[in-house]
Amino acid sequence: MRFIVTLILGLASSVALADPRARELGVPFDGTPGPLNAITDVGGVTVGQVTLLEDLANGKKVRTGVTTILPRGKATLDSPVFGAWFSLNGNGEMTGTAWLDEAGQLEGPVVLTNTHSVGVVRDAVISWRVKQGKPDASGYWWSLPIVAETWDGDLNDINGFHVHPEHVWRSLDEATTGPVAEGSVGGGTGMICHEFKCGIGTASRKVSESGHDYIVAALVQANYGLRDSLRIAGVPVGPHLRGDTASIGRKPEAGEMGSIIIVIATDAPFLPHQLKRIARRAGMGLARMGSSSGNGSGDIFIAFSTANPQALEVKPLLQASFVSNEHIDPFFTATVQATEEAIVNAMVAAKDMQGTEGHSARALPHDKLIELLKRYGRYSGKS
Amino acid sequence: MRFIVTLILGLASSVALADPRARELGVPFDGTPGPLNAITDVGGVTVGQVTLLEDLANGKKVRTGVTTILPRGKATLDSPVFGAWFSLNGNGEMTGTAWLDEAGQLEGPVVLTNTHSVGVVRDAVISWRVKQGKPDASGYWWSLPIVAETWDGDLNDINGFHVHPEHVWRSLDEATTGPVAEGSVGGGTGMICHEFKCGIGTASRKVSESGHDYIVAALVQANYGLRDSLRIAGVPVGPHLRGDTASIGRKPEAGEMGSIIIVIATDAPFLPHQLKRIARRAGMGLARMGSSSGNGSGDIFIAFSTANPQALEVKPLLQASFVSNEHIDPFFTATVQATEEAIVNAMVAAKDMQGTEGHSARALPHDKLIELLKRYGRYSGKS
Amino acid sequence: MRFIVTLILGLASSVALADPRARELGVPFDGTPGPLNAITDVGGVTVGQVTLLEDLANGKKVRTGVTTILPRGKATLDSPVFGAWFSLNGNGEMTGTAWLDEAGQLEGPVVLTNTHSVGVVRDAVISWRVKQGKPDASGYWWSLPIVAETWDGDLNDINGFHVHPEHVWRSLDEATTGPVAEGSVGGGTGMICHEFKCGIGTASRKVSESGHDYIVAALVQANYGLRDSLRIAGVPVGPHLRGDTASIGRKPEAGEMGSIIIVIATDAPFLPHQLKRIARRAGMGLARMGSSSGNGSGDIFIAFSTANPQALEVKPLLQASFVSNEHIDPFFTATVQATEEAIVNAMVAAKDMQGTEGHSARALPHDKLIELLKRYGRYSGKS
Amino acid sequence: MRFIVTLILGLASSVALADPRARELGVPFDGTPGPLNAITDVGGVTVGQVTLLEDLANGKKVRTGVTTILPRGKATLDSPVFGAWFSLNGNGEMTGTAWLDEAGQLEGPVVLTNTHSVGVVRDAVISWRVKQGKPDASGYWWSLPIVAETWDGDLNDINGFHVHPEHVWRSLDEATTGPVAEGSVGGGTGMICHEFKCGIGTASRKVSESGHDYIVAALVQANYGLRDSLRIAGVPVGPHLRGDTASIGRKPEAGEMGSIIIVIATDAPFLPHQLKRIARRAGMGLARMGSSSGNGSGDIFIAFSTANPQALEVKPLLQASFVSNEHIDPFFTATVQATEEAIVNAMVAAKDMQGTEGHSARALPHDKLIELLKRYGRYSGKS
Repeated sequence: MRFIVTLILGLASSVALADPRARELGVPFDGTPGPLNAITDVGGVTVGQVTLLEDLANGKKVRTGVTTILPRGKATLDSPVFGAWFSLNGNGEMTGTAWLDEAGQLEGPVVLTNTHSVGVVRDAVISWRVKQGKPDASGYWWSLPIVAETWDGDLNDINGFHVHPEHVWRSLDEATTGPVAEGSVGGGTGMICHEFKCGIGTASRKVSESGHDYIVAALVQANYGLRDSLRIAGVPVGPHLRGDTASIGRKPEAGEMGSIIIVIATDAPFLPHQLKRIARRAGMGLARMGSSSGNGSGDIFIAFSTANPQALEVKPLLQASFVSNEHIDPFFTATVQATEEAIVNAMVAAKDMQGTEGHSARALPHDKLIELLKRYGRYSGKS
Repeated sequence: MRFIVTLILGLASSVALADPRARELGVPFDGTPGPLNAITDVGGVTVGQVTLLEDLANGKKVRTGVTTILPRGKATLDSPVFGAWFSLNGNGEMTGTAWLDEAGQLEGPVVLTNTHSVGVVRDAVISWRVKQGKPDASGYWWSLPIVAETWDGDLNDINGFHVHPEHVWRSLDEATTGPVAEGSVGGGTGMICHEFKCGIGTASRKVSESGHDYIVAALVQANYGLRDSLRIAGVPVGPHLRGDTASIGRKPEAGEMGSIIIVIATDAPFLPHQLKRIARRAGMGLARMGSSSGNGSGDIFIAFSTANPQALEVKPLLQASFVSNEHIDPFFTATVQATEEAIVNAMVAAKDMQGTEGHSARALPHDKLIELLKRYGRYSGKS
Repeated sequence: MRFIVTLILGLASSVALADPRARELGVPFDGTPGPLNAITDVGGVTVGQVTLLEDLANGKKVRTGVTTILPRGKATLDSPVFGAWFSLNGNGEMTGTAWLDEAGQLEGPVVLTNTHSVGVVRDAVISWRVKQGKPDASGYWWSLPIVAETWDGDLNDINGFHVHPEHVWRSLDEATTGPVAEGSVGGGTGMICHEFKCGIGTASRKVSESGHDYIVAALVQANYGLRDSLRIAGVPVGPHLRGDTASIGRKPEAGEMGSIIIVIATDAPFLPHQLKRIARRAGMGLARMGSSSGNGSGDIFIAFSTANPQALEVKPLLQASFVSNEHIDPFFTATVQATEEAIVNAMVAAKDMQGTEGHSARALPHDKLIELLKRYGRYSGKS
Repeated sequence: MRFIVTLILGLASSVALADPRARELGVPFDGTPGPLNAITDVGGVTVGQVTLLEDLANGKKVRTGVTTILPRGKATLDSPVFGAWFSLNGNGEMTGTAWLDEAGQLEGPVVLTNTHSVGVVRDAVISWRVKQGKPDASGYWWSLPIVAETWDGDLNDINGFHVHPEHVWRSLDEATTGPVAEGSVGGGTGMICHEFKCGIGTASRKVSESGHDYIVAALVQANYGLRDSLRIAGVPVGPHLRGDTASIGRKPEAGEMGSIIIVIATDAPFLPHQLKRIARRAGMGLARMGSSSGNGSGDIFIAFSTANPQALEVKPLLQASFVSNEHIDPFFTATVQATEEAIVNAMVAAKDMQGTEGHSARALPHDKLIELLKRYGRYSGKS
């Protein structure tokens, strides 16, 4: 009998939020987070996650899903956002980037899934658009969706192609504001970082600039890195935790096989060429975790701004506001900080997982992390 | 009852070759073509095309398909090629480009289809790979396929999603060397250029360089351009042929809505950064047709070299040969020439087509083309 | 005795304008030019050219100079413009492009000179800025000038380094609106195209879009191309004019050694990422001349918009207007058309020149050009 | 009276080497350095530095110079190397990059100087080439030199334009193998990092891959960063050292004004597209120092490989070897590590400096650094 456990957002997040996040454990981070410390601190952004957990009759295990980010929630249907992307190491897929580069605008959701399901998800975004009954304000149907991936084939039966259009549609239909479930959920269900169980993580930063308050936030689907390279808050955590490595049927010597997709959202107004600058900074947050962006890793970043809703109307002459380049530095710093915290959040939230082919991945042990932070004078909790 | 007419390669090409190609009509081109004047003049390259023509019970019409290029034929399974891409105007999709840019290598086929079927085709390339039973020599399954598209929604029921995995698998299994069917076949079935029926076209050029004989070839899936801008062999054909425009339910004033994917293949040895240079020249061939690469057009080009089969073996230290930059000019020129001829071939081969929603597209009238070539002193045929 | 003939702008242009330009000879071009058919049709743009012609006592000959474009005339000192660049074939230098890419803005003039004088010109732009007595509105001195080059070493004693800071300063101080001298003037003094004498050329196009009238204009410093590849208005002029090649001590077989810098200016409002799109289209105009952008050619293009003078003020939050992507096509077409005409204008304006080392270059013979246009049905003059 | 103290390489390095470098102070670094822990561990690479220190009669002070890296020492004249570059934040100049991108090769030295002297240095590299008496093996004179800069106008009378051609020529003529002077020398003379005195730094790493021993090395001209962001070996050094800030007439609130040029050299064989990958990793080393690559910073990186000396001979068909992408990770990691250590070396080597306009910069206090390393459990020295 087919048994699918699908954790939809509400449930997943209520469970997840009972657990401590990284800063609650005592990991020190710079900067001030927004109220949810999540990508949904950016007004209007909604997130929908569908998690597929199933133990198949043939012994294989399904450990995968879909995480969908709608820049303007329901209004995403008709109102694009300015956006840009950057590939630090392109061993991965993000569809739709040629048009994103060209037009400087992102016309629908950003959807994250596993490597072998990018296609079904991409076409399902189009068919969902068609199902909404009418084209966008310009008379167009979206046709170049942004879908990105990381590879969960260690824990998930990836060649079983278990993501179906209805999963994508549900993630689109049920996307909400509010807290975002982290760890082994959605597209991140089967992911592994630094040889610990990993998945989805998010974080945000407040930026006050010239009398305005803005949010810069990150959501990551993290699946990269070797154990030894792991650094948390500058502490060389990895070399101290050489045991507990994921049992995934290959050697660490094989090098980084994973990937990380980083989505940066902000409500501050930026033009597309500025968002490309911001996207590049995501890699500097990744660098602080100890990564050197290995050959096997698809480290691909996308940034968008929800400001300027009028800027992409269907009119010949448009207007946009933007923060000047001279005032962009706090947004760069916030990007680096939010990225770093989102990755640690993904690791902290994930739980041990039994996967397909007898593979398994252990979670980052919270107690040992705290102990190491203390040993290196970096513990920020109540001692 | 469902009625699918699928013209596989052998049939399609034998029919097509009975018809004159552009140079046989008297269109003058520079340079010397290879024996087939096709991308299959590059040794080892195979092409598979599956054409879907169906009049559905609901009145809609299927006019679409898949065109697959295997750089090394069956050996493509295990032996990558050096490759690169360039987007002149990115209103289109080509998946797999982040890795192509990063690694400088193309690890499977290049597949062309319609805009709304890129996803199914992409995943089907992966599932075909899995069906072959073993990963490639590096232990990997291909997972970042190159799939590109142009939009056939004027003539094809594009939102019916009629391309299925088995069509992709068939195009892969049945790909062959030899003549390549042109016009309304494969991925080009429902395409329109300069408001004339269009589709797939190909051409090749011989290049002799320092005692070696090489081939540079182009295959295009052409779907771009307004009537007035059409130039053939420098002759302003478009303004003279203002009638006979495609009846497609929208105005020419809407601007260029189409796209062109150009695939450049060569057996000359080039490194990835040199192939990127070659890919850029495809746009110069397109420019000679009168295009200024409109906003709505996805003008995306990919180039690969079948030389250096040993250069991407699974070894730590590899060797490659390459033509020096100082000797690359004839290959640039051949790229421009082959691209231009491939586009004209696509237009010349296509026949009038009735499409969905009552839309239709007329073929370029051969007699009028000949007349215009004569009027402008550019007819190269027997007068 | 040292004898420097320096033709400053006023003189040079009054002489030059007595001569017919390409369209006056009967070359057909598409589109409608602005009043001057020059880059100075874009309001505010000024051009200064200093031409250095000298026969030295040691037998060497100076045939070089400086062409300076100020996007906002004198106001360029304090008011940047949005800008972008593209390299079709980067065998050349354009300084300042890293910041142009990053910031999306051009903060001073664009200066064109010979290959071996880029440095002195670059530093002279900085020293001129310093001489103006105060930094720009942001408190900065310009320090990353845009200086580009083509190689005039066939006719000019390029290793004599004859361009001096005062020449640059004069071109900046004396830049004016009004007609622009073409041919062997300014930075174009010693340049050669398609083995004919060449140099500076310019042209413009009117674009009416949604009730606004705009200008798109090109200025080229043209020095590229082999004779055989020359096409004018689609006519294969080159192969008919195989004699009269430049006597420059090297063989055509050596391939394209020259370069072309293309500057695109518009008063239509565009954002930086859109100007990059426009810059790319300059290469399509070049393609229409028959070029395939040879390895030895530095084919580098820059585009700027003089709209939005307030958009780069020293304020935290800025506003800009921009033409929507859906309405950009006429600007693409105008870019292609203006580029093509500017190149032909450069060739038509240039006169035979005796250069250094006994080298010489003949001008394109007007009578033969007219004859060929007539033979191919492309003559637009009064017959 | 004009008084110029010019420290040439031999002298400067013998002085400098008496001082402890970062790892000798007890800063922990990952990886194994080469014998000199310098860019000159890459066989054949030579470095020449000319330091200009002068107190002018008008009260202004000269604090600038030139640092020159010759990839193949004297053989650089005739033998290019494969190379590539990356701009993390392009508020800076590196000339010659269009051709470096296009050709994948670096044809002469890499020269570092101050922002306002890039031009004179660039032309001086050309004139030095001409002075050598003959063009390179291809018959060409170098004409597109690589010259990069950071801005020393806080301490140096930058608008005095004190770098002259003879300084460049001397740095080229006197470049040697062996130890490399660090800190306030050469192009780094007047530079400041994280509001401490800074300048030139270098480091190297051994990489053993498949039986071969290679070197990856970095040389930086470092001039970036705010105090608070400074991290050394993961320790938040900056916030603990808020005093001692450079007295430079502007507020930290002004944001990062500086820049960093990073030169990566290796003797491992890589193709140009792979060197671009390596160049990108330099930014990950910078990120570990706490930088988020501010708007005002020109963070521009170049990488070259001295392997394959035969690969760029003047022949039609060439051969190159290269490490496979699957084995590139150790080189990425070495790049990150060497960059990080080179920056710390630059800070550790620099001494307090009195500059122009009464400005001054203090050196990083070694004792306080050691104390902080100890406090955070990161001291690697003998306690």
